[in-house]
Amino acid sequence: MPGNSFGNYFRITTWGESHGRALGVVVDGCPAGLEISEEEIQYEMDRRRPGQSKITTQRKEPDKVEILSGVFEGKTLGTPITMMVRNVDAISKSYEDIKDTYRPGHADFTYDEKYGLRDYRGGGRSSNRETLGRVAAAAIAKKILSMHGVKTTGYVKQIGNIVCEITDFDEIEKNPVRCADPAKVQPMIDLIESVRKGGDSIGGIVEVVSQGLPSGLGDPVFHKIDADLAAGIMSIGGIRGFEVGLGFKVAEMKGSEANDLMYKKEDGSLGFKTNNAGGLLGGITNGENLVVRIAIKPTSSISKIQETVDKHGNPKELKVKGRHDPCLCPRAVPILEAMVNLVLVDHLLISKMAKI
Amino acid sequence: MPGNSFGNYFRITTWGESHGRALGVVVDGCPAGLEISEEEIQYEMDRRRPGQSKITTQRKEPDKVEILSGVFEGKTLGTPITMMVRNVDAISKSYEDIKDTYRPGHADFTYDEKYGLRDYRGGGRSSNRETLGRVAAAAIAKKILSMHGVKTTGYVKQIGNIVCEITDFDEIEKNPVRCADPAKVQPMIDLIESVRKGGDSIGGIVEVVSQGLPSGLGDPVFHKIDADLAAGIMSIGGIRGFEVGLGFKVAEMKGSEANDLMYKKEDGSLGFKTNNAGGLLGGITNGENLVVRIAIKPTSSISKIQETVDKHGNPKELKVKGRHDPCLCPRAVPILEAMVNLVLVDHLLISKMAKI
Amino acid sequence: MPGNSFGNYFRITTWGESHGRALGVVVDGCPAGLEISEEEIQYEMDRRRPGQSKITTQRKEPDKVEILSGVFEGKTLGTPITMMVRNVDAISKSYEDIKDTYRPGHADFTYDEKYGLRDYRGGGRSSNRETLGRVAAAAIAKKILSMHGVKTTGYVKQIGNIVCEITDFDEIEKNPVRCADPAKVQPMIDLIESVRKGGDSIGGIVEVVSQGLPSGLGDPVFHKIDADLAAGIMSIGGIRGFEVGLGFKVAEMKGSEANDLMYKKEDGSLGFKTNNAGGLLGGITNGENLVVRIAIKPTSSISKIQETVDKHGNPKELKVKGRHDPCLCPRAVPILEAMVNLVLVDHLLISKMAKI
Amino acid sequence: MPGNSFGNYFRITTWGESHGRALGVVVDGCPAGLEISEEEIQYEMDRRRPGQSKITTQRKEPDKVEILSGVFEGKTLGTPITMMVRNVDAISKSYEDIKDTYRPGHADFTYDEKYGLRDYRGGGRSSNRETLGRVAAAAIAKKILSMHGVKTTGYVKQIGNIVCEITDFDEIEKNPVRCADPAKVQPMIDLIESVRKGGDSIGGIVEVVSQGLPSGLGDPVFHKIDADLAAGIMSIGGIRGFEVGLGFKVAEMKGSEANDLMYKKEDGSLGFKTNNAGGLLGGITNGENLVVRIAIKPTSSISKIQETVDKHGNPKELKVKGRHDPCLCPRAVPILEAMVNLVLVDHLLISKMAKI
Repeated sequence: MPGNSFGNYFRITTWGESHGRALGVVVDGCPAGLEISEEEIQYEMDRRRPGQSKITTQRKEPDKVEILSGVFEGKTLGTPITMMVRNVDAISKSYEDIKDTYRPGHADFTYDEKYGLRDYRGGGRSSNRETLGRVAAAAIAKKILSMHGVKTTGYVKQIGNIVCEITDFDEIEKNPVRCADPAKVQPMIDLIESVRKGGDSIGGIVEVVSQGLPSGLGDPVFHKIDADLAAGIMSIGGIRGFEVGLGFKVAEMKGSEANDLMYKKEDGSLGFKTNNAGGLLGGITNGENLVVRIAIKPTSSISKIQETVDKHGNPKELKVKGRHDPCLCPRAVPILEAMVNLVLVDHLLISKMAKI
Repeated sequence: MPGNSFGNYFRITTWGESHGRALGVVVDGCPAGLEISEEEIQYEMDRRRPGQSKITTQRKEPDKVEILSGVFEGKTLGTPITMMVRNVDAISKSYEDIKDTYRPGHADFTYDEKYGLRDYRGGGRSSNRETLGRVAAAAIAKKILSMHGVKTTGYVKQIGNIVCEITDFDEIEKNPVRCADPAKVQPMIDLIESVRKGGDSIGGIVEVVSQGLPSGLGDPVFHKIDADLAAGIMSIGGIRGFEVGLGFKVAEMKGSEANDLMYKKEDGSLGFKTNNAGGLLGGITNGENLVVRIAIKPTSSISKIQETVDKHGNPKELKVKGRHDPCLCPRAVPILEAMVNLVLVDHLLISKMAKI
Repeated sequence: MPGNSFGNYFRITTWGESHGRALGVVVDGCPAGLEISEEEIQYEMDRRRPGQSKITTQRKEPDKVEILSGVFEGKTLGTPITMMVRNVDAISKSYEDIKDTYRPGHADFTYDEKYGLRDYRGGGRSSNRETLGRVAAAAIAKKILSMHGVKTTGYVKQIGNIVCEITDFDEIEKNPVRCADPAKVQPMIDLIESVRKGGDSIGGIVEVVSQGLPSGLGDPVFHKIDADLAAGIMSIGGIRGFEVGLGFKVAEMKGSEANDLMYKKEDGSLGFKTNNAGGLLGGITNGENLVVRIAIKPTSSISKIQETVDKHGNPKELKVKGRHDPCLCPRAVPILEAMVNLVLVDHLLISKMAKI
Repeated sequence: MPGNSFGNYFRITTWGESHGRALGVVVDGCPAGLEISEEEIQYEMDRRRPGQSKITTQRKEPDKVEILSGVFEGKTLGTPITMMVRNVDAISKSYEDIKDTYRPGHADFTYDEKYGLRDYRGGGRSSNRETLGRVAAAAIAKKILSMHGVKTTGYVKQIGNIVCEITDFDEIEKNPVRCADPAKVQPMIDLIESVRKGGDSIGGIVEVVSQGLPSGLGDPVFHKIDADLAAGIMSIGGIRGFEVGLGFKVAEMKGSEANDLMYKKEDGSLGFKTNNAGGLLGGITNGENLVVRIAIKPTSSISKIQETVDKHGNPKELKVKGRHDPCLCPRAVPILEAMVNLVLVDHLLISKMAKI
């Protein structure tokens, strides 16, 4: 199976290069009869869109989405839903003079090694703009999930050494960092501003929580929820780590500490006293909140001068032009929510086949 | 696609329950003409096998593998290779009295929620014994990779708060922990012994390194090497986190620190001065070592008494009988190497189609 | 995706060579909670089994099936169901002296061309024995379908120039040809006997009808019911043609003759006055009987002397030894039913995801 | 896997409704570095385009293709190639008054049954316009195949009871029927004209031949060349039968007649004295011409009055308006060639993985 499709049955295929004519996605496997509008898709596209504050890239792309197929009279047809965004503010010229130079931290060299050629404009297919299609597709997933009471929320947990201590869901979309701790918003903004002015960039951690999940979702052994989440999330550019529940902290824990104990709730249903596992047991949802964290590297494109080589091995000094996010985390939030929702809706659908 | 297959073209399908008649794997997509013997498969099975030291479970399974198809006169036929291990030392009786009780940290509850029933003997399909098939299949992958000069080595990096400071490849298989730092072997053994005697268990971190990889492997965007690795590895029971290269450390780094700079090597080829990215750029191998780390939770089955409920919600006190590893890490090493090799061989094969 | 799996969600992977240790199948995606026994599987295996009358091959294989996984206490677990048949009466020696000779009509030459080697004993993987796994898997499919009122029946429609004129379902399993027309049973037997005695073989046509299908099954555009049926059926050895409904007769028809007109039935539901389309419109079931016909070539292995070459190009005279069916059709009936049922159960399951 | 993708590694996903905004295709898995232009794609689109003679529909669609991604500076990037055709001459109004009426021979009823709703304009997704994407994708496949010396040619073999007796490849594209026998061109045109004037339509048979194929292509058992061809071809609207080589004629043949005997050719290579098998043995190419035939039903849309019902079961008289082909065969030729080429290029690519 070639590499541009994701999902078992709610299946997306993304396409497009950063500075090509257009980018988009085909969603196959969406059930028929779902009410969906371009406005609902656009709302999520806008959450991902750059140029909205001084801490994000100044590329001014309207990222206007067009539904080309699969929706008729406001409802899904059960046929493939194709959505497209035309590129408008694609200043390709700024890439002309570095077309043979390998930018540090980018996939320029490896694309050349793999394919023998590449679209050097803005990273081509390896650009973060590829995620446009994921976000468009996930807007549909989100709609279906919301009909089942599932809500996914992402937020910036850490930037540099500034870590959120509390998680206030209402705070997140009020600040440009998408930080969940009101006390850490300004420090994070200051840090980002500071590295930007220094011609540099900074990494961070995003946490994503899904609430309202039914138990029983996930398809062992290779399509466990955490396996699919990890696959989808690690496939996003710039991600270096993925953890679920307590994550890497389990290395220092004992079984008697890490195990979540069960009890009977007042309503008679079964629940867990803690959620160290992050909502999954054996890769199947257990009815608790799904909690994952993602490590995001500092943006590779910085305006500081860096040493590198061109494709012929000649040494080069590079000061990356173009307009780049000094920190990927704020705009990663809607993208990571998208990937989580794509995995969840897929498993929500295929769970219908689990029992006779 | 249902959940028990993995791989794009070198594709495995594992099957079997912990205490059922047999467990095994079908490998489809293995090229014809490869010399392979049951002994080569058995060698890896034995590395994974329990009962080999006092720090692992005392279940005495011979785990004798039988090749049922796909190999003729010592060579692969290009047809599906099925390998099977019969269960022998499956003491199911010890599970009879807990068949309605949900063991903390196990998938008992979620399997019931998903399927409406489960094989309660030894965790059934959710048992770590499922990985037998992965290891058998990966023995073939390893053989193909070695023909291309690729070697994958796993080792225990951390148990509890004991962390390896040096990595000595020659040390790893000499000690029962598969610890890479000679100075940390005894402390790790002592720690494991200590938690075992206390009726408890302990978590840890395993690192896996692949050397000799050609550049250009990986299939963006959804089958990037790190995406496939994460999928495969997070699908193993007990894994809580996955990271590549610097991993979660990138959260606190600047772009100017994290970027690996390129240079021309003495032999004229291009290389990197550092390997913060762990051997991948844009999900494609860059010719450096592939480096991943995996967080493994403490074994859920402990002999300490734990509170839980049965399927009817009645409170229960549980002291898990049976024979369990006090620390999953040592035996996880060959399993994690296996998953890495399965991903790499798959991409080695499909890389043949990358260019016209 | 390599070649040994079939199905979208109810997915089978067959494995094994004709004279290897064993043949079998893994069924992934079967819902949990289905009651199934080895006896039910064996019943279908026996219908396919050779050696039951003088018009079939005299190879005496018990073809005893063993369920290795996925079933516990008589019910499916939702995990992969592996079923195996050990080879017993595999007289490999008779193939030793033709191991370099290309048998006319067989895949010996093409397997060598593709793989560079082959298991020459009894055709290896290209043997009709590969269908054992299909039949075993389809016994499960049949059980699920019967719970939904669907019944699939195959029968021999034509052998040589003897064509059934009536279709009497009760007649089929009463005669060794599985002929549906009582008047044609003896002529068909005589014809088969006659060609067998002449050291030759004869072709034929099998028709398969599925009754009781709900409307709405099929997944346009590439998984239309007829597309999946054609794929599954043409993948069986010896098949040369597939048609649905009127089939090739449509070439000479007008639209006004071929269209099936709709009307309102007495019970208020909608139906069709004719069934020229064979139960499908746009690849989706329309509630009428599904009707397909399959052209089966005469057995390639005949005892008449045939000219051929060996792998080095040396001319050879070949008198195929071994024990072969003089006509493939009677034993093809349960195999073709199996493939139809595998397609139908797959679509029955995934139809649950069609609407929101 | 949902239904709108086809191919193992050279994988297409088609999308779009007949009268929606656009139709198109995503091609994933095309190797990098292939020179391809919009003109080359358009050439094949034009061969499929309606409105070119009085024996085809008069819908005047320019069917102008636009490459949206995956091609840069005239070469494929190895990334998904998306191609789109905007709908222009989509007179939807003519469908308004039949939106609740089930047209005989169409998928209106079954789409309603499956999805609960449908795009009633021009058949929506079930329209033959869906094949636009297949033809666009196959233009790329054709280019790759031609680089390997493979050439696929389709032609009309039969319309009504008029059957070609000779096959003159040079004749095919000279006449509007794409008939291969010069003597049958005018009779076929007269027949089509005659049924059209009578408000009716007529069926036929198309034959497709691929020359220059290497031996060894095909992936047993479920991705045999004939299995993949049958799947792809039966998924096209209006197809009722598929056969390879002698096809249904084998029913009346003996093994000694049907077997193709091998011999050593003057150049030392091995060949076959006849080609009854149509170029395949065990589903793998044997170096001879691949020969398939396809039965095409008469167009369902006819202007003759037909009785039918609406969705409420009310009887209706229907005289299908709109512009329809009186015979599907001439325009089916490039579509069928396309499907054959898509299958062949896929197997050409994956054959690179067959041997170690």
